[in-house]
Amino acid sequence: FESKLPNLGTSIFSQMTALANQFEAINLSQGFPEFDAPELLKKQLNHYVLEGVNQYSPSSGVPRLQQQIGQLAKRKYAAEIDAAQQVTVTSGATEALFVAIQALVREGDEVIVFDPAYDSYQPAIELAGGKSVNIALHAPSYAIDWQTVAAAINSKTRAIIINTPHNPSGKALKQHDINALKALVIKHDLYLISDEVYEHITFDQQPHLSVLRDDALFAKSFVISSFGKTFHSTGWKMGYCIAPAALAVEFRKIHQYVTFSSFTPAQHALADMLEQQGEHVDELSEFYQQKRDVLSKALKDSRFTILPSEGTYFLLLDYSDVSDLNDVEFCQWLVEQAGVAAIPLSVFYQQPSNDKVIRLCFAKNDATLLQAAEILCQL
Amino acid sequence: FESKLPNLGTSIFSQMTALANQFEAINLSQGFPEFDAPELLKKQLNHYVLEGVNQYSPSSGVPRLQQQIGQLAKRKYAAEIDAAQQVTVTSGATEALFVAIQALVREGDEVIVFDPAYDSYQPAIELAGGKSVNIALHAPSYAIDWQTVAAAINSKTRAIIINTPHNPSGKALKQHDINALKALVIKHDLYLISDEVYEHITFDQQPHLSVLRDDALFAKSFVISSFGKTFHSTGWKMGYCIAPAALAVEFRKIHQYVTFSSFTPAQHALADMLEQQGEHVDELSEFYQQKRDVLSKALKDSRFTILPSEGTYFLLLDYSDVSDLNDVEFCQWLVEQAGVAAIPLSVFYQQPSNDKVIRLCFAKNDATLLQAAEILCQL
Ligand SMILES: CSCCC(=O)C(=O)O
Ligand SMILES: CSCCC(=O)C(=O)O
Repeated sequence: FESKLPNLGTSIFSQMTALANQFEAINLSQGFPEFDAPELLKKQLNHYVLEGVNQYSPSSGVPRLQQQIGQLAKRKYAAEIDAAQQVTVTSGATEALFVAIQALVREGDEVIVFDPAYDSYQPAIELAGGKSVNIALHAPSYAIDWQTVAAAINSKTRAIIINTPHNPSGKALKQHDINALKALVIKHDLYLISDEVYEHITFDQQPHLSVLRDDALFAKSFVISSFGKTFHSTGWKMGYCIAPAALAVEFRKIHQYVTFSSFTPAQHALADMLEQQGEHVDELSEFYQQKRDVLSKALKDSRFTILPSEGTYFLLLDYSDVSDLNDVEFCQWLVEQAGVAAIPLSVFYQQPSNDKVIRLCFAKNDATLLQAAEILCQL
Repeated sequence: FESKLPNLGTSIFSQMTALANQFEAINLSQGFPEFDAPELLKKQLNHYVLEGVNQYSPSSGVPRLQQQIGQLAKRKYAAEIDAAQQVTVTSGATEALFVAIQALVREGDEVIVFDPAYDSYQPAIELAGGKSVNIALHAPSYAIDWQTVAAAINSKTRAIIINTPHNPSGKALKQHDINALKALVIKHDLYLISDEVYEHITFDQQPHLSVLRDDALFAKSFVISSFGKTFHSTGWKMGYCIAPAALAVEFRKIHQYVTFSSFTPAQHALADMLEQQGEHVDELSEFYQQKRDVLSKALKDSRFTILPSEGTYFLLLDYSDVSDLNDVEFCQWLVEQAGVAAIPLSVFYQQPSNDKVIRLCFAKNDATLLQAAEILCQL
């Protein structure tokens, strides 16, 4: 059987979690929290299930959840969203990314992607008949040189994908990045897919610079977020896309034939959660900053170099003083011999890269983080 | 914005449910049950949510659910499934159909589709760069002429999509259909997508002729089913695909980038349900046959001609003695003026069709069916 994605295998996240389970290692690889979803969210889900709210929702989502998403965007980013027209609820941000890419990318189109990149962008672009143009960013700064981006744009360029705060690097775009991006999008009439799934996890008092803050840039954008990251419920697979009405129409056309709709009782429960416990969202940055700091502090005396994390629940470590192995080999060794599962950074690049950097997920209980750090300090 | 699906709008099911709500009509249009999911299923879902089983499942599904699906296939169809390799859990059968089509269809490929057809096949084929070759079947028999199918096959033909029991016609393929299909698939080295979402709803003691019963045919097939139909939980969006290992590998590659995984607690709850209350599945045909008979009997003295339903929860009515309107106009009139929402059959065809047939969903309480029938008897 001839594969349409011949170069792709099982996602690195699945592979590493499987290895972590096999070797009973501490799993800091795949990004998911060790702690549970908020009590109210679980309680409300159960309430709607018992009440019998178990049939199809509207394809674009339960209206009260769309409204709550719109209000959150207004409160945080002063964005004026017509929720009924512009917000579409999806089965996780992964579906939203896939659908936005399908909506935009046509045979022969090029899409600019910054490596290291989340692993779903590339296959989604390929399946749509497009080609990714990958611009590699490197440790320790992962800074974007916007002149390089400008030089990569040609008449085939259809879209740019950004991700801020960024998985895996933990970097957040700054205002000068957004300005440069906006200038290019507008000058070349491009579209933007803005993956903001970690929007509520930013550190050191830095506000998240959502594309929703900028009307002119948003006019060309699909902005994608995730409830899994915000409400410690990655297994619920709830996400959404906010787009200008004309783009939302096309997004919805495709979404209705990809999954049609998402788990109905969870949509109602999320609406209740946003309505009744908005503070959960506001406290999330502080919650994760404390975890980042626990892990960083515990690694202070190790031979790893800690790279700065400005957001997300990921921390990068440079291990060049610890091992001569390449990062894939090192992570293999780490999970098998040391009992800690991490993700090698090179798998997030299309071109070979050898920065000697690994990613740890710190969405774990402090005890777990300390236990992993203790092991890593001995290397 | 140039649409990739220029001829498509909002799905007819969404449109009709919206109209039904607007005009407070009895909604026999979109296919979803009026009754609730089984108590055990709801109880177990709540149990896993409270217990904190709320993070990502493996991308292919929770292993115990995969195993239960394999055992059900063995029990009902004597199929020998390696569940870990061959069963992939999806976010509804819609996702499974989309992914199977993406896995198979390449630029320029042709796919044979029988009209009337479920509305998601066509856009999924188009988005993959393929072309559907639509063979129209007509009331009252909706019989397939396999010589016509043979004549439609050429070197570009990649796959055939079947759906049995069939939405919207309520017809089920017979053994001679399966034999003819198998001969063509093997002779021309085609693939088969078998949409069997109503597999557990067949009437008059006719067994469901699953593709899983036939090793040689299954070797070229993606077999797709839905828990929403079986467990009265369409809003949970849980489905699956069973395929030979080599095809499952490709299916999973794409699935992991479309949704990655599905609602974890529901997967565990469904595993419990299949394990502990297998009789629910076995009793489903009788349950729905009684509903079909309630509705048919109540319509006996109407001016509608009832077409035979062999499975699914749909019944077709020929309204040529009731109205001269075309079916779209008639359904519009029916929802606005008579207070009953139905689906016009012509929307399931790529080519214009004018059979004067509408579809009613009988997955409703008897009182609802009788109330709708009373209205229809007055026309
Ligand atoms: C869908 S599995 C990937 C989870 C995640 O976002 C990550 O680990 O980067
Ligand atoms: C996903 S909405 C469609 C429901 C259904 O299967 C039908 O009405 O045919």
